[in-house]
Formats: sequence, structure tokens, C-alpha cells
Amino acid sequence: MSRNQYVSGAVIRRLPRYYRFLGELLDKNITRISSKELAELMSLTASQIRQDLNCFGGFGQQGYGYNVSLLREEIGKILGLDRKFKTILVGVGNLGRAFSANIDFAGSGFELCAMFDNNPDVVGTVINGVTVKDAAEIESFCGENNPDVAILCVPSEAAQQLADRLITCGITSFWNFTHYDIKLDHPEAVVESVHLTDSLMALCYQVKDIKSPAKE
Amino acid sequence: MSRNQYVSGAVIRRLPRYYRFLGELLDKNITRISSKELAELMSLTASQIRQDLNCFGGFGQQGYGYNVSLLREEIGKILGLDRKFKTILVGVGNLGRAFSANIDFAGSGFELCAMFDNNPDVVGTVINGVTVKDAAEIESFCGENNPDVAILCVPSEAAQQLADRLITCGITSFWNFTHYDIKLDHPEAVVESVHLTDSLMALCYQVKDIKSPAKE
Repeated sequence: MSRNQYVSGAVIRRLPRYYRFLGELLDKNITRISSKELAELMSLTASQIRQDLNCFGGFGQQGYGYNVSLLREEIGKILGLDRKFKTILVGVGNLGRAFSANIDFAGSGFELCAMFDNNPDVVGTVINGVTVKDAAEIESFCGENNPDVAILCVPSEAAQQLADRLITCGITSFWNFTHYDIKLDHPEAVVESVHLTDSLMALCYQVKDIKSPAKE
Repeated sequence: MSRNQYVSGAVIRRLPRYYRFLGELLDKNITRISSKELAELMSLTASQIRQDLNCFGGFGQQGYGYNVSLLREEIGKILGLDRKFKTILVGVGNLGRAFSANIDFAGSGFELCAMFDNNPDVVGTVINGVTVKDAAEIESFCGENNPDVAILCVPSEAAQQLADRLITCGITSFWNFTHYDIKLDHPEAVVESVHLTDSLMALCYQVKDIKSPAKE
């Protein structure tokens, strides 16, 4: 499969959505779909879909539409979902616990191989088959296992020091749920941040706009 | 405060980040900051900051910089954080439980007034002072309390029917953690979606790119 040098972040960000919709089509035993039909389903335009998929060499055959299964498989490969990047999770509070229980790591290209916390009540407990280790063991674990990715679910105050430690341990990539901006201190790191409070505030703006637009 | 008619989604999406950074400055007793200093701190350009804030009428005084406290307060008002939109949460699994415990609803413009689930083991339990109600009571609760917003933490299969019910109950706005695209069936709804798996897949693509860029 040929691939253009530069693929914009916006396209990458749409790929998981394609992957999801194509999976739902397969669940409904739909094996072939035109860009027009897929566009309607996803509230996009057919030309945007063709453009997006052309970034990676294109998959459709003019007049025949896309083979759903093949297209989904290829998008999965582009995303790297066939990999198993070794992943650790740090901070096993409510949020960390929720992610370890609810997120399909294996289906997303990752393998959750260890969880760490510094709360003695949590250390040693087993969550979804993984025993929570003491955060003091991070260095020795990383030395032996070389994980690629860390999920940060610690309080924001603790995030900066933790990120420094993890990067020293050779971790290059982060799924970041804290408000600490890792890239400010470590521009070379790969960071995907989920700022839940920012998302809620953005919702607030929109709700305010429909509830009392005249107040401004 | 004057305000331009149209403010782009991208600007709105940056406002919570401004709000956060300004809060951190206040915590450090910094009361005044130039757009240049703020830009460095946030990895933006001074001109982008001035442009963003000008959408809402501008707050700075040439040569004097921004009053941190005042600017933060104004951004909070623009976002609507001084409101208390009545909010319900449906689906008290790990994720719903994590949000109810970890998210500062009051500081984000919302008031979490009820939680619902259909699991008899969960109904009746008290989480952070809120008793979980039976999902069968959603209609009667909404009839009496008129909530504005619902947080959807149910399995994706259940989301479509639930959204239909909630919209019939007069709920207009959603913080959506399911993969169901509410706007496809209800284009008038206000929806802020957090697709955690999509975020993880987007990370996977980036990790793959630094780990094995030559494989493509």
C-alpha cells in the first residue's frame, strides 16, 4: 500500500471513526458500500471520504464501492491496531480503574501490562487480572520490560515529576488524562491528551448559547 | 462586554485551556501577564492570543498586559461556568462512577442532580452524596425537575433508545461517552462527545509512526 508522506492530523483523527462505522456495517452483514452511502451514514460528503482514503493510496474501485471488510482491515493496519504496544497505567483511582476495566486495549493496538499507584490500600489489589504495583517499582519494571506507552491518571500536581521519571525510563508516548502539558517540557514526546474538564466547559458554552443566547 | 456574532468552534475549544492556565498563574500569585508571556507559557503565538480574545471584545490594554484575575473571570462568564445547568448521569458503571467522583461539575457550569442505572445492584446505592435511581424513573424525574443536560455512560447499544427517551423528556444537551452519534438522529441536540477509544487509536497511529516509520 502506497502512502503519502504527510497525512494531516485531521485525517488521522477521522480514521478511528471510519473504523467504527465500518465495524457496525460488518455487524449488519453489509459487505460493500459506496462512498456516497458511507458519507450519508457518517454525515460527511462522498468527496471528503474519497479524499481521506486517498491519503493512504485509496481503496475503492470506481463504480463498485468499497469492500467493507477489506477497508476496515486496512484502516486498522494504518492505525497500527494490529500492534501490541506495551503500556503501563499510573494512578489507579476511579478513573484509572474505569479505563482498565472499560477500554479495549488489545483492540486499540495496546497491551496493558502493568498498573502502578502509591496508595498502600491499592497496591497489591488485582484489577482485571493485573496486580497493582507500587509506584516505587516503576524504574525497575521499565528496566526489565521496556514499555512504550504510559497512561497518566494521577492528580495534575504529580504529573510533571512523573512524566520526567517515565521519560528517563525510556517511555516515549503518553495517553494523558492530567492537565499537565507534557509537550511543554518534552516536545519530543508523543502525547494524546484527554481533557475531560475542558470538554465539559466547551459543552457548557454551547448549552448556555441555546438556553440564554440573548444574555450576552 | 461586546461579542462578535460568530465565534469559531476552534476558539471556543481553546477557552477552557486559557481558563486553566490563568488559574495556575493566580495560584502562583501572578496578577498581570502580557500576551507574549502567556503565549510562551501556552505554546501559542501572542498574535493568536490577541485574536482569540478579541472575538469577545478583547481584554488587554496595550502595553499593560492582561489582568489575570479579571481575564479568567470573563472567560469563565463567556463559557457559562457561573451557571448551574441541571445535569443527570445515566449509566453508573466504572466510567459513570469515575466521572461522578472526579469531575468538578460545579466549577464547570453544571450541577449533577441525579444518576440513573438499570442494574438492581447499583440502584439505591449512594455515590458522592447522590442516590442512584432506577432508570425507569427517568421520565418522572425529568417531568418534575426539567434537567438540561444528560451524561451518557451506557453501553453504545443502549444509547440510541436512551437518547430518544431523554430528548422526549425535554433534555437538549449531552455529554456523550458512547459511540452512538446522537446528532445523526437529532441534529438539533447539543452534543459534546468524548470517544475514548478513538483517542487511543489516534495515539496508536502516532506511536506506530515513531516506533516503525519504515514499515509502511
